[in-house]
Amino acid sequence: MATNMITFKTIKKDTYTLIEFEIQDNVCTPDVLTIMIPPEVDATKGVILSGRGPVWLYGCLLHHYHPTAWVATFDPRIGGGVVVASHTKGLQIGEVIRAK
Amino acid sequence: MATNMITFKTIKKDTYTLIEFEIQDNVCTPDVLTIMIPPEVDATKGVILSGRGPVWLYGCLLHHYHPTAWVATFDPRIGGGVVVASHTKGLQIGEVIRAK
Repeated sequence: MATNMITFKTIKKDTYTLIEFEIQDNVCTPDVLTIMIPPEVDATKGVILSGRGPVWLYGCLLHHYHPTAWVATFDPRIGGGVVVASHTKGLQIGEVIRAK
Repeated sequence: MATNMITFKTIKKDTYTLIEFEIQDNVCTPDVLTIMIPPEVDATKGVILSGRGPVWLYGCLLHHYHPTAWVATFDPRIGGGVVVASHTKGLQIGEVIRAK
């Protein structure tokens, strides 16, 4: 039985906030998107999302943080956050922000 | 060596477009985000994305299709598209659109 709880940890960096999420018991259902409370961030900086979870969880979080300077998803194989949306001049989609 | 090519297939349904992507040789790098050409869709309908690929590829595609009625990612375990963003009254984030 899924407890459907997600916990967030934020790590503030100079130019971005790293948001690490963890799904309790490693199981969640789409209902969780309506009850989770993503942490507040400084929208003038970027956001890197990191964690093990379904694509739709990432999708919802990316949408939530879309108003920030830029959003990226951490890819452990690449060792950085891959920018998927950017309002920051000079920072393009597809760029990798070294993180962790 | 990654060829870094993504092919798209679109399947038109009454209320949404199902977009299936395939990564050639199953390997791609973030550069692909700057060269891929996502298919055009009817923005008055929703979009369901489906395919095996990294989270950042989904993230970039979700951002690209954000202006459409709603966007969802197909989850094979659920057997439907999970809505992650919606401009459609009555269709909420977290709802599942049965598909395929």
